Amino acid sequence: MKIDGVAWRSIAEDGAHAVRVVDQSRLPYAFATLRLAGCADVAQAIVTMQVRGAPLIGVAAAYGVALAMQRDASDAALAAAYAELLATRPTAVNLKWALDRMRALLGALPPAQRAEAAWREAGRIAEEDVAINRALGGHGARLIAAVHARTRRPVQVLTHCNAGWIATVDYGTALSAVYQAHDAGVPVHVWVDETRPRNQGLLTAWELGAHGVPHTLIADNAGGHLMQRGEVDLVLVGADRVSRSGDVCNKIGTYLKALAAFDNRVPFYAAVPSPTIDWALGDALREIPIEERDADEVRRVAGRDADGRPARLSLAGQETPVANPAFDVTPARLVTGIVTERGVAAPGELAALFAPARSAA
Amino acid sequence: MKIDGVAWRSIAEDGAHAVRVVDQSRLPYAFATLRLAGCADVAQAIVTMQVRGAPLIGVAAAYGVALAMQRDASDAALAAAYAELLATRPTAVNLKWALDRMRALLGALPPAQRAEAAWREAGRIAEEDVAINRALGGHGARLIAAVHARTRRPVQVLTHCNAGWIATVDYGTALSAVYQAHDAGVPVHVWVDETRPRNQGLLTAWELGAHGVPHTLIADNAGGHLMQRGEVDLVLVGADRVSRSGDVCNKIGTYLKALAAFDNRVPFYAAVPSPTIDWALGDALREIPIEERDADEVRRVAGRDADGRPARLSLAGQETPVANPAFDVTPARLVTGIVTERGVAAPGELAALFAPARSAA
Repeated sequence: MKIDGVAWRSIAEDGAHAVRVVDQSRLPYAFATLRLAGCADVAQAIVTMQVRGAPLIGVAAAYGVALAMQRDASDAALAAAYAELLATRPTAVNLKWALDRMRALLGALPPAQRAEAAWREAGRIAEEDVAINRALGGHGARLIAAVHARTRRPVQVLTHCNAGWIATVDYGTALSAVYQAHDAGVPVHVWVDETRPRNQGLLTAWELGAHGVPHTLIADNAGGHLMQRGEVDLVLVGADRVSRSGDVCNKIGTYLKALAAFDNRVPFYAAVPSPTIDWALGDALREIPIEERDADEVRRVAGRDADGRPARLSLAGQETPVANPAFDVTPARLVTGIVTERGVAAPGELAALFAPARSAA
Repeated sequence: MKIDGVAWRSIAEDGAHAVRVVDQSRLPYAFATLRLAGCADVAQAIVTMQVRGAPLIGVAAAYGVALAMQRDASDAALAAAYAELLATRPTAVNLKWALDRMRALLGALPPAQRAEAAWREAGRIAEEDVAINRALGGHGARLIAAVHARTRRPVQVLTHCNAGWIATVDYGTALSAVYQAHDAGVPVHVWVDETRPRNQGLLTAWELGAHGVPHTLIADNAGGHLMQRGEVDLVLVGADRVSRSGDVCNKIGTYLKALAAFDNRVPFYAAVPSPTIDWALGDALREIPIEERDADEVRRVAGRDADGRPARLSLAGQETPVANPAFDVTPARLVTGIVTERGVAAPGELAALFAPARSAA
């Protein structure tokens, strides 16, 4: 998508021996890119959330394997890269999906062919991510257009966290739908949850602002009230992992918005590329590991000081005990539909939507 | 309650012509008191949330009228003080309750007697607040003790915003129950919602820490997840206004926690002194005015800088559109009970609990 009229992707090849990514840990206060020239660079960028967003993490990890293969294409190096990258974040499944795909391909090749094949495959995964998210955004945009056709008013979308283009290679997931509706002339306005503690809502506001989409930033606490007052037409989020039965694991706080949507008969959709669907998952609440992140993410906050420079403050002291679970699970019973590249499915219909591909695979 | 072993009240008479209050806009980063020597001082302190908390606002407003009467005890001055103070905050009903009580008393007296009577009445309201909150905390503490008697484990309470002693003259409402349970030897731990955008959870963490009550600060987004995992035994909040049928208007985000409690069969209680009950209120969702506060409360944040000094940052720029509703309404169907000075009532039994007093009044 565009920043000040210039087309960007969140990750791009930088020659044949590195990738360049947008440093999301500095957004929206500074726009900078990072050059990642090795597997360890990629792993570190994922851990620190310089690279974040379930789809993007998968793509970055694929490049991480490819960079590892350029240094050492042995079985041991492949296993080590797989393990190092898999350990970075436990919750999103795209990471494991991409690593499994790379390992399956490379493990079947002689080491001498791995470096080139890995680089090509990582590029293919990146291009697929773009195509998938363009397609699912088209399906999501039709949901938004359908609301507008009924109400003839600007469509009020509420979103949580950042499921925008910077969370993917391009387009985004939830925001792909918003961008495509907006670009097609459907009037749409987005309520943007701040998304404490990491404030990814500020990334969403920045993205939407840069693309010219009307939006309003709100505290995470406000969404239920807005739904009670009829000020939300649909909730549209991304996800880090979706079960075959349609349970949605996404940024902490998503479950609360799904409850409010259900209580107020507001449709709740998760927009996900198929690599976010974990077909092996039974009971999402029991089986998905929920990452507990550093307490300082809650105790400290980033922003700009009075001179406009990026700065940090402490909200609470080191003596304050903190819990910081990063994700929660929204049960399928609260989910209206899953928006995928193949169309929109009710949670119970998700498996059927992908049945041909899965039996062919 | 105590700070470092010294007993404090959030408001106290400072001679006969002023009150001294804890400046809550500087907590928890600095502890300071303010001397309020006139009605305008009191009104300003309420608007800026130097004085906050529904019960405390009522008491402060009573003193505001009393200070006004010391300068000019005419009918016109009484009406002006009433209007000035009533306009400070629209949502909490204690403010109007205290002002109505002062006006009814003073309006029946000749102007020459008003100053003294007003000062005495404000003092009486303050002492009643202490007695009421001590009593309701006792009832709430029994709820906590009953959970412990059943589970034999530390009782996990989740609270939102600050319903502590600094939100009242002393004891608090929700936290009065916690303090009294803790002081009686019942093991209790409090999950403290940060409560964006004003972060009153930091006041709660500060209060609990100063009193020695185990607690953990969490993002507002985390409570639903904790309830799903069985880590919350009861939700206990204060309120700014409760309808006769038990709808609870409280800090924005309370509704989301009530939904999660209901979804996970966790009891949800609001602890309120009877002046917080608006007996005239029919449909809380339609009738309670919800204050929309300054967008900069969302755009900016207070904390401590690297040198430990109070400081502020911008999270979002002035170009970012913001909505900032300060309260929401939790429908009675999600409320297990209202904890009052007369005992705990299911929402539908609240009116009966107060029937004798109300028919006598």
